[in-house]
Amino acid sequence: MRTSHFVMADTGWPGCAKSLKGVILDLCGVLYDSGEGDGVAIPGSIEAVKKLKESDLQLRFCTNETQATREKFVAKLRRLGFDISVSEVFPPAPAAIAVLKERGLRPHLLVHDGLLPEFDGVDKTNPNCVIVGDAAENFSYQNLNEAFRVLIGLEKPVLFSLGQGRYYKETDGLKLDVGVYMKALEYACDLKAEVIGKPSPTFFQSVLNDMGLQPHEVLMIGDDLLNDVGGAQHCGMKGVQVRTGKYRSSEGLCLCVSSGLLRFIPVFFSLRTHGCERLRGRPPCPPRRSSSGVESGELGGDGPRGSGRQICS
Amino acid sequence: MRTSHFVMADTGWPGCAKSLKGVILDLCGVLYDSGEGDGVAIPGSIEAVKKLKESDLQLRFCTNETQATREKFVAKLRRLGFDISVSEVFPPAPAAIAVLKERGLRPHLLVHDGLLPEFDGVDKTNPNCVIVGDAAENFSYQNLNEAFRVLIGLEKPVLFSLGQGRYYKETDGLKLDVGVYMKALEYACDLKAEVIGKPSPTFFQSVLNDMGLQPHEVLMIGDDLLNDVGGAQHCGMKGVQVRTGKYRSSEGLCLCVSSGLLRFIPVFFSLRTHGCERLRGRPPCPPRRSSSGVESGELGGDGPRGSGRQICS
Repeated sequence: MRTSHFVMADTGWPGCAKSLKGVILDLCGVLYDSGEGDGVAIPGSIEAVKKLKESDLQLRFCTNETQATREKFVAKLRRLGFDISVSEVFPPAPAAIAVLKERGLRPHLLVHDGLLPEFDGVDKTNPNCVIVGDAAENFSYQNLNEAFRVLIGLEKPVLFSLGQGRYYKETDGLKLDVGVYMKALEYACDLKAEVIGKPSPTFFQSVLNDMGLQPHEVLMIGDDLLNDVGGAQHCGMKGVQVRTGKYRSSEGLCLCVSSGLLRFIPVFFSLRTHGCERLRGRPPCPPRRSSSGVESGELGGDGPRGSGRQICS
Repeated sequence: MRTSHFVMADTGWPGCAKSLKGVILDLCGVLYDSGEGDGVAIPGSIEAVKKLKESDLQLRFCTNETQATREKFVAKLRRLGFDISVSEVFPPAPAAIAVLKERGLRPHLLVHDGLLPEFDGVDKTNPNCVIVGDAAENFSYQNLNEAFRVLIGLEKPVLFSLGQGRYYKETDGLKLDVGVYMKALEYACDLKAEVIGKPSPTFFQSVLNDMGLQPHEVLMIGDDLLNDVGGAQHCGMKGVQVRTGKYRSSEGLCLCVSSGLLRFIPVFFSLRTHGCERLRGRPPCPPRRSSSGVESGELGGDGPRGSGRQICS
């Protein structure tokens, strides 16, 4: 197995691999590709989760999935073969419900039918805010108009967005994500949405609190440059982007890239055991800030994969 | 009839009323409210068009309407009672077709079914750009995904938006306009759309060219603060916002307001005949620049209608 297929954030990352105490994994695009039925597990990902669980590292799963309740979502992951329990998974909806209670807000929901049961106990009469999730087919013109009319009719309109992703990959192709409709409603009502989910620092912090770890002790692995890697770095965590899921080669300015868990996990554990001296004998590159604001530093490299990719010599 | 129901842009506007040579009218929200069937004419608007046509002023109609071909749209206006001909009406679609020809582009269309015949003669095979119009019910999740996939698959994605309105008023309430979906696709693909229609200076200039007039000789009247009044001012024209259509009292920072054509037209012709000395004897206010960037100056006033409204003393 070559060690050149991954690139990590921050100088000295390989050195700090030994001192890491926890890993947070994104789910869709890292462990599985969604699509018809339960979707499909990404090669090597079931074993990667198993290996991480057998290690001394704490493991959590941080997702912007909002098409199902947490229980149904975890049941799907278990059917795909992952050893994951509900308490290890952090999606935006439960965090949103906590915010509603705290601020005495009653939502109008523009979400997927599968997520509705999560809000069963929430007062939705005479709504004074709107929550938009990844509603998929529910993003009809009529439904978006309804959400818009609720917002435009409020004296102080409040819009919560469960994530801000642009798109994600399903087995039959790329699909628009909630962030696109968040932007649509922001523009229609001339307001700024409050994002609940990645990359919100509050959201990441709630996961760190659950782990009882400091940000610098934790590595986040995801397929979304801004929401996973950028969000993690913004909180002081390390971030690695995998090339599975929605990763596209045109995202050439980020170097925090791994080809996927299949190749990353063995290298990762090798780093924890032996440090980086075995990795081609190359020192890590200095960190750089890409146009997306995400810091990156490459460890090894097998050639450019995107027009803007920097390769260390 | 009181003369205090309108407010106009630019100091000295009343003075220059005499020297105006042309008027451009927005259609939806100024002449009629759209909705079931043909919609309904706004009181006084049929007579206003008649009065303007009988005057020595040139008259054109500038619209971001993209739910029908120009012919069908004008036929509807005529059924509503307006004396308007096809050659006087400027919608975005014909302008877009000219741009496609000029740049050798083949569009994927995300538009209203009623607009499709306008593009009958246009090559749409193997599309290398996307055109989004006010597609209304055609703004399904599936259709927006299709447009997104065309764009994200292009090496140099080009998105044209037929207008950039946030919403408009139909007889059964406010409806989301094309700008909202333009913003959605811009965010999804991380690009900037090219707007064809108001407030594009190129679009306004094509109308001025047809009139054979200079910008300072023409007054634009519309119900949209940014696309009508702002767009006109940006071109050097005068702009007046009417309080009909989608006008909302929360747009309190703009003073370029008239209650509607019903009251505006008699005052306008009085100004052209007598100047402003009869209007309560008040001098026009100095121009101000609102937060929207639209210059405004009030002539007379009968009290604040929005929280941010300035009233001249």
